[in-house]
Amino acid sequence: MIVCRPDSPIGVFDSGIGGLTVARALMRHLPHENILYFGDTARVPYGVKSADTIIQYAIEITDFLLERQVKLLIVACNTMAAVAASAIRARSPVPVLDVIEVGALVAAHRTRNRRVGVIGTLATIGSGAYDAAIHGHDPTIAIHSQSCPLFVPLVEEGWLEHPVTLLTAQEYLAPVLAQTIDTLVLGCTHYPLLRPLLEAVAGSDVCLVDSAQTIAIHTADHLTRLGLLNPGAGPATHQFCVTDVPQRFQTVGERFLGHPLAGVEVVKW
Amino acid sequence: MIVCRPDSPIGVFDSGIGGLTVARALMRHLPHENILYFGDTARVPYGVKSADTIIQYAIEITDFLLERQVKLLIVACNTMAAVAASAIRARSPVPVLDVIEVGALVAAHRTRNRRVGVIGTLATIGSGAYDAAIHGHDPTIAIHSQSCPLFVPLVEEGWLEHPVTLLTAQEYLAPVLAQTIDTLVLGCTHYPLLRPLLEAVAGSDVCLVDSAQTIAIHTADHLTRLGLLNPGAGPATHQFCVTDVPQRFQTVGERFLGHPLAGVEVVKW
Repeated sequence: MIVCRPDSPIGVFDSGIGGLTVARALMRHLPHENILYFGDTARVPYGVKSADTIIQYAIEITDFLLERQVKLLIVACNTMAAVAASAIRARSPVPVLDVIEVGALVAAHRTRNRRVGVIGTLATIGSGAYDAAIHGHDPTIAIHSQSCPLFVPLVEEGWLEHPVTLLTAQEYLAPVLAQTIDTLVLGCTHYPLLRPLLEAVAGSDVCLVDSAQTIAIHTADHLTRLGLLNPGAGPATHQFCVTDVPQRFQTVGERFLGHPLAGVEVVKW
Repeated sequence: MIVCRPDSPIGVFDSGIGGLTVARALMRHLPHENILYFGDTARVPYGVKSADTIIQYAIEITDFLLERQVKLLIVACNTMAAVAASAIRARSPVPVLDVIEVGALVAAHRTRNRRVGVIGTLATIGSGAYDAAIHGHDPTIAIHSQSCPLFVPLVEEGWLEHPVTLLTAQEYLAPVLAQTIDTLVLGCTHYPLLRPLLEAVAGSDVCLVDSAQTIAIHTADHLTRLGLLNPGAGPATHQFCVTDVPQRFQTVGERFLGHPLAGVEVVKW
């Protein structure tokens, strides 16, 4: 039996450590919430795996977090959101929010000229999940998508404002910006770290939808409506479960999280 | 029982498709040889996995290729060569060549000033395997290593002579070139595709050791000495086994191979 209490943690999960940008936004917007983060670092990347495998992995992580009594699940990984969100919802007795649903909702409401750009990994863009979700809100919106395979390695290298990254962003965004979009969805958990650079390339006429930030705002709203907001008598606890400790885990993780990464537990399956 | 015959295939294996550069070099140097390539595309990348897991996977692939009666095994993956070469040799009744052993041998013989640079992935450089192998030939050689995490995604994006790649190479190679090396080992199967660009950045005083090319030459030599060179009455057969068909497999694979990729068999384990 699942008992949801205000002081139960929010479960955030990702195929790796990119979802730490979501954890970071949650910590900023909801400083009293306890957070349990799960990163499947042993099996990352999910983007190249079959749908059946991704669903199986997502279910395993869902069960793990539910056993730890989370009150809400946040699917921070775009690939999992694209492929496994309905399977996770079918499995979970607690509410589930995912980055694609929230990003699409915000983009559909923000655009004025109904021309939206979406950038993401090959897997996310190839899935068409953002197109479907945005069209679910307004089928007349024109969507211009672009996969940006180099952004994840550039972020992991820490080249957030490097000339190489600027040149790469100019090349990737050129065809999307040529479509006079007014809204650009950052459809990957790594991209919020490139936000200043992407804003400079996209220009002030384009509004960026940062899914980490938007999902944090939606989570606050959701918990308030459910009466599950933690009143915050004591300090919040933040715990991080990973399935392996890959190369540069600490360095890259702290870059994503924006502060020292402590409370890491390695889960061996 | 293993029966090695001249018309048995050479088994080439890699964690993914990067090893196709090795297959390509073999086809050029040994046009009469039958080749069976194995790419573990479902489980790539190996670089972030534990040594135990990498050894287990390497043994599985070794057994698979031995069952198909290969006469020689070539470990094209630097990570597998760094971590699992001795386990593979212990398992295999047929000769085993690996990219690190051959690259190190050639570098140790080519350098005149005994200052060698090695570039590779984080996993390969972090393993110190090239250092150990080069020092096995000559412990007085000074080795200057540099991991280049962006080169693999840049190659997979096809930006082989792109300004972004040039700028990236200049940045990565600057500290290595500052050590006045005269020999640079390309310690990753993806890097031969960047050879023209890397030659331009390194300058004409630096000799590049391309492990795909060097292992093809060593294979020819090895087979000749063993009396196992295929006399080549008929056309050679080239077969490619992969464990999954990832995004852009065909495009990227053909870029690595240098010609159309046919004869692909998906092996499900």
